Amino acid sequence: MEKMALAIHGGAGTILKSQMTPDLENEYRKGLEAALKSGWSILEHGGSSLDAVEAAVVSLEDFPLFNAGRGSVFTHEGKQEMDAAIMDGHSLRAGAVQAVQNNKNPIKLARLVMERTEHVLLTGDGANEFAAEIGVAFEPDEYFFAEHRWRQMLKAREGDRVQLDHAESPIPDSKFQIKDESGIWDLESRPLGTVGAVAYDSNGHLAAATSTGGMTNKKWGRVGDTPLIGAGTYADDTCAVSCTGHGEYFMLGVSAYDVAARMKYKGLLLKDAARETIDYLGSIRGEGGLIAVDTQGNITMPFNSEGMYRGYVESANNCVVEIYR
Amino acid sequence: MEKMALAIHGGAGTILKSQMTPDLENEYRKGLEAALKSGWSILEHGGSSLDAVEAAVVSLEDFPLFNAGRGSVFTHEGKQEMDAAIMDGHSLRAGAVQAVQNNKNPIKLARLVMERTEHVLLTGDGANEFAAEIGVAFEPDEYFFAEHRWRQMLKAREGDRVQLDHAESPIPDSKFQIKDESGIWDLESRPLGTVGAVAYDSNGHLAAATSTGGMTNKKWGRVGDTPLIGAGTYADDTCAVSCTGHGEYFMLGVSAYDVAARMKYKGLLLKDAARETIDYLGSIRGEGGLIAVDTQGNITMPFNSEGMYRGYVESANNCVVEIYR
Repeated sequence: MEKMALAIHGGAGTILKSQMTPDLENEYRKGLEAALKSGWSILEHGGSSLDAVEAAVVSLEDFPLFNAGRGSVFTHEGKQEMDAAIMDGHSLRAGAVQAVQNNKNPIKLARLVMERTEHVLLTGDGANEFAAEIGVAFEPDEYFFAEHRWRQMLKAREGDRVQLDHAESPIPDSKFQIKDESGIWDLESRPLGTVGAVAYDSNGHLAAATSTGGMTNKKWGRVGDTPLIGAGTYADDTCAVSCTGHGEYFMLGVSAYDVAARMKYKGLLLKDAARETIDYLGSIRGEGGLIAVDTQGNITMPFNSEGMYRGYVESANNCVVEIYR
Repeated sequence: MEKMALAIHGGAGTILKSQMTPDLENEYRKGLEAALKSGWSILEHGGSSLDAVEAAVVSLEDFPLFNAGRGSVFTHEGKQEMDAAIMDGHSLRAGAVQAVQNNKNPIKLARLVMERTEHVLLTGDGANEFAAEIGVAFEPDEYFFAEHRWRQMLKAREGDRVQLDHAESPIPDSKFQIKDESGIWDLESRPLGTVGAVAYDSNGHLAAATSTGGMTNKKWGRVGDTPLIGAGTYADDTCAVSCTGHGEYFMLGVSAYDVAARMKYKGLLLKDAARETIDYLGSIRGEGGLIAVDTQGNITMPFNSEGMYRGYVESANNCVVEIYR
């Protein structure tokens, strides 16, 4: 039997242990473990890497502490605009959506773009219209996380600067609460980043998926790297890659594809290719990380930020979850 | 003095000599030559490659026979939604817009995204809002080419299928006219493709720019490769690339960056790297072409379609313009 592999991330950025309570950290770990189990149960039953990364990302989208799906942050206009992309390495097909609203699981919509259209990328109102036409269920605003709290925080923000997902200076006094089934959590700052998954299945196929709620207070329809094939998400028969961090730099570095290119054209191992990609990202002042798998089931998760919510399955009964450097 | 270089394209696809009249062909050639002269005059006065590619693309956007700017095709809803991207190889900065409307020169707006924001890509209403906020002039619908004729043709189309820019079967009986200052032109089918320019300047810097009116009758906010850094447009200190063709395949192949990656990581010459990229595109059933320059001033323009409107400057007084294989 082939060696299977699954890795996930829940965003990279300024994650300081000093700002984290044990309870909150435990909550993050539970969210990551649930996503790993969700994806792994598909792989171990002979399912495809494509199904596994979708399931893992759905689990992360449904978890309110991550900035994707339910936990998405708010734009300048107080909207939640979500982006997602999925790519099947074996068939080299991909689907992606930009700026979709009230969509419970944007990663599922991205997959429907791949499977039901001749396109790769749908944006904005058109993407929402596609969702409506194919009968994807919309969730009311209330479904999405702590909306009125979030609005309060945005309103309190006197300045008008865009808050990057991964900026080094989150508003220091912007405490807010998340209320979940399991309790109420006080957070020091907004949810970080993006979520993603990469997998290698027992049929020898790779897949990658990434989903995000974007940048807090973003304006002008800004799009980051997440939904762009080659930038934030990529898979072929060499490797599968999902990125997280300051999206603009991953776009300029074409980072997800860069890992594959360094393997294919330079003959590097996955680990070295991914390390070089992140080193290059740092050289152009980009911050963040990526997760990647290859066709030997190797996993690598380099990043140059303070931390990255991440995890992988070591064996059927052992999920490894890490947050800090 | 460094060897300067400039190349442009006006779209690739099914361009059959049998469907072309001598007058119409002459008109296309005039449009391409005007764009080359516009860009070259900047380079020969010591201007930057960035200014040169912008000027060349502005000239192509203003020319009604190409599917960009003034000549943009219509979406399913009868709107013109235009995409554009520009990238400065030396600074590794880029700007891009998606689905902007009534914008005379989307390539100028893309450059303003690069120079006036911290972002790379703005989409849809947000991008239009950015344009309005920085005072970019909007043109009325009438400015854009032959609108009522075009609507007539769309209406006449009984079916509802999306017409790819580069589909092999343009509606055979869809004759329509373009009226320009210089006369009235009967076209057998819709304007093809995308426009783009790549340049190398006397300071040793590279730049690329691409602009498109997208797919006729497109739905759901489809976005192609043009505004995506790495897919349709890319420049660094290795090469500058602008692509044209069936956008979805250029996105999956990450084609523009793939040329640079094959040079950087495989050590290939520009010509061989670009040829391999187009061969790979063909292997995944993609159709189209690209133009590229490197830091020796070499130019290459491979394509696998019937034709590609293209041209380059051989010397100050000699513009070479080609259409067919």
